[in-house]
Amino acid sequence: MKKLLLALLLTTLPALAQQALWDRQHVTSPIVQPDGQVSFQLYAPKAQQVVVKGDFTGIDSESFPLSKDSLGVWHVTLPRPLQPELYSYAFEVDGMRTLDPANAYRNRDISTYSNIFLVSRTQGDRGSLYSVQDVPHGTVSKVWYASPTLKMQRRLTIYTPPSYEQGGRYPVLYLLHGMGGDENAWSELGRVTQILDNLIAAGKIKPMIVVMPNGNTNAPSAPGENQLGLYPPKAEGLPTPAVAEMDESFLDIVHFIDHHYRTRRSRQSRAVSGLSMGGGHTFAIALRYPKTFDYYGLFSAAVRTSLQGSWEDFYQQAKQDLAFQQELTTLFASRPRLFWIGMGKTDFLYQNGKELRQLLDEGGYHYTYFENEGGHIWRNWRIYLSEFTQQLFR
Amino acid sequence: MKKLLLALLLTTLPALAQQALWDRQHVTSPIVQPDGQVSFQLYAPKAQQVVVKGDFTGIDSESFPLSKDSLGVWHVTLPRPLQPELYSYAFEVDGMRTLDPANAYRNRDISTYSNIFLVSRTQGDRGSLYSVQDVPHGTVSKVWYASPTLKMQRRLTIYTPPSYEQGGRYPVLYLLHGMGGDENAWSELGRVTQILDNLIAAGKIKPMIVVMPNGNTNAPSAPGENQLGLYPPKAEGLPTPAVAEMDESFLDIVHFIDHHYRTRRSRQSRAVSGLSMGGGHTFAIALRYPKTFDYYGLFSAAVRTSLQGSWEDFYQQAKQDLAFQQELTTLFASRPRLFWIGMGKTDFLYQNGKELRQLLDEGGYHYTYFENEGGHIWRNWRIYLSEFTQQLFR
Repeated sequence: MKKLLLALLLTTLPALAQQALWDRQHVTSPIVQPDGQVSFQLYAPKAQQVVVKGDFTGIDSESFPLSKDSLGVWHVTLPRPLQPELYSYAFEVDGMRTLDPANAYRNRDISTYSNIFLVSRTQGDRGSLYSVQDVPHGTVSKVWYASPTLKMQRRLTIYTPPSYEQGGRYPVLYLLHGMGGDENAWSELGRVTQILDNLIAAGKIKPMIVVMPNGNTNAPSAPGENQLGLYPPKAEGLPTPAVAEMDESFLDIVHFIDHHYRTRRSRQSRAVSGLSMGGGHTFAIALRYPKTFDYYGLFSAAVRTSLQGSWEDFYQQAKQDLAFQQELTTLFASRPRLFWIGMGKTDFLYQNGKELRQLLDEGGYHYTYFENEGGHIWRNWRIYLSEFTQQLFR
Repeated sequence: MKKLLLALLLTTLPALAQQALWDRQHVTSPIVQPDGQVSFQLYAPKAQQVVVKGDFTGIDSESFPLSKDSLGVWHVTLPRPLQPELYSYAFEVDGMRTLDPANAYRNRDISTYSNIFLVSRTQGDRGSLYSVQDVPHGTVSKVWYASPTLKMQRRLTIYTPPSYEQGGRYPVLYLLHGMGGDENAWSELGRVTQILDNLIAAGKIKPMIVVMPNGNTNAPSAPGENQLGLYPPKAEGLPTPAVAEMDESFLDIVHFIDHHYRTRRSRQSRAVSGLSMGGGHTFAIALRYPKTFDYYGLFSAAVRTSLQGSWEDFYQQAKQDLAFQQELTTLFASRPRLFWIGMGKTDFLYQNGKELRQLLDEGGYHYTYFENEGGHIWRNWRIYLSEFTQQLFR
């Protein structure tokens, strides 16, 4: 049938301007070799200058110029093969950022789109962990729940593991995004579906439900997914004031999940973690509900003592804030099974994280610390998720 | 907290090259006025020529030149206000197609991305029907099912209506995409979630489950969502031969849905419809299982008599194919409640649709016909879905 359909369509090609049935790209890009060598191509005969910019080292964005051939196609091969990883990039054509028209795979980070590609060499490396493999797959759903505290219908993403349909009750990881993010961030940029499917299939993590709410308490959902229309996503969020904070309204989510999904409804089957602002939310949730969760993950966290506190003078405030000190004592007196902190060496919140560890050390509180290269980037948050989940619900 | 967070971040702006926290666009685009007047802007100081191309009339793609101001920003306002509708467009900068960097809303059609925007004037118009409204929302899930016939795990999109979580059993609409599409096409380009939520809230359609499978029987799922990696999506599909056709393997889906969801498991609670190739699939499914479904919808359908038949000589083959004639007689002898055909006047499959109607007329078979302006485009398929669903499960 495909051949016949193709034959038919070829005879009616002029009519097809109506529908995007034909790929108008003349080049293949990117070309990823098995050894990690990567080339880019762009057809841009009138352009004066083309560069590709990407997170090829993971520390800073690197820029490589392309050169034009006689057919108007620009080419470049990166000087070194890349390590197994998920990479993102875009072109700059005469100074204007533009995506690779030959690459249909794109991620949105707040309001910026980038092309993505995967480098994988061997089964089990990071590239393969972030790839869709031939393993049983979980279900990903976009679900609306009622938040009595925030007085809104709100949207969240939920991953149920492959075995969920066969019955049984499951532990739950609540996973929070950063500033400017939304309920789509972890499943898209964070490759949650692939990481969970692959780690479950490899027997490295327990099958679990992952709940990814929207941490912007002034919005019901991701931009474009609510009645505010197709507004430009901004890191600073919407002008509407929030009725309450994420920690105040968090049990609305836990109640909804426990009511609608087959969860294990005990402390030892609940984990909460988040990145950046979501790490701050995680800390606030830990202090507010010390007996609801047994596992906490702070990924590049922006921590503070209270709603009035800022990140910049965290340590000074924390030492003077008696209510905060009491909450911290209560939290660790409840002996959580895991208080996990992940931070990159060049993260702009590194100092804030160092002050948190200093405070915990002074109190004699037990935590697990994971430090690696790089900064405030999704590459690290995918790594932290992969590390953190392997320690849950044991 | 937002203010404090913003203040903190403003002091650390240089570090933020690490994360896409800042929107780098300096212009707002598109600007949609309440009366439907639409302007576009693009910052491209080095460009020689910029045009915007979009489906502003819905019949052909129109092109409008932008003019550059002294700051390097290109502008244009469309000459006429637009009717309420979902529109798509892209820029061409010095001959190269590029998306609007100020507009974060994009749809993928096979391998081509376009920006989108909505024009809505009054509650109930087409623009509002395609918008997220403040009404109860259904759940959209990406689910994997086992297809014994195709010997694969396969992915589908499923919409359950807002009332589903409260219990009860629901009728099911199976909704099929066209050539080059996949299980994401109807929910993204087809705005199924918005249309269903809004028509259910308005009391115009019965609450129903909508199942959107992948009609490419040689692939488990949409490009990028399977173990074949991030390959370029193509209309002609993957080279792998299909084990069986969509109609042969279709009951695998119905069995999975009836087993895992609270469905009404009777003929009068099942509908199947599809666009283009999916309309052909719908026709083949109708002929193969005349007692499984009670409602059929053929949207700009590519119909044929058998796996060997093509669209071009449908009528001649149909009259000579005795097996086909017998199947057609059996189908209509079972008296389906609705056999609905939708076709645009300038669709490249118009003649094929006319021959189908001629054949049905000659046999005295009852069907409902809906004809409108335009061709083989998503705008029409959204309209057909909105019309067809209002006639289901009454």
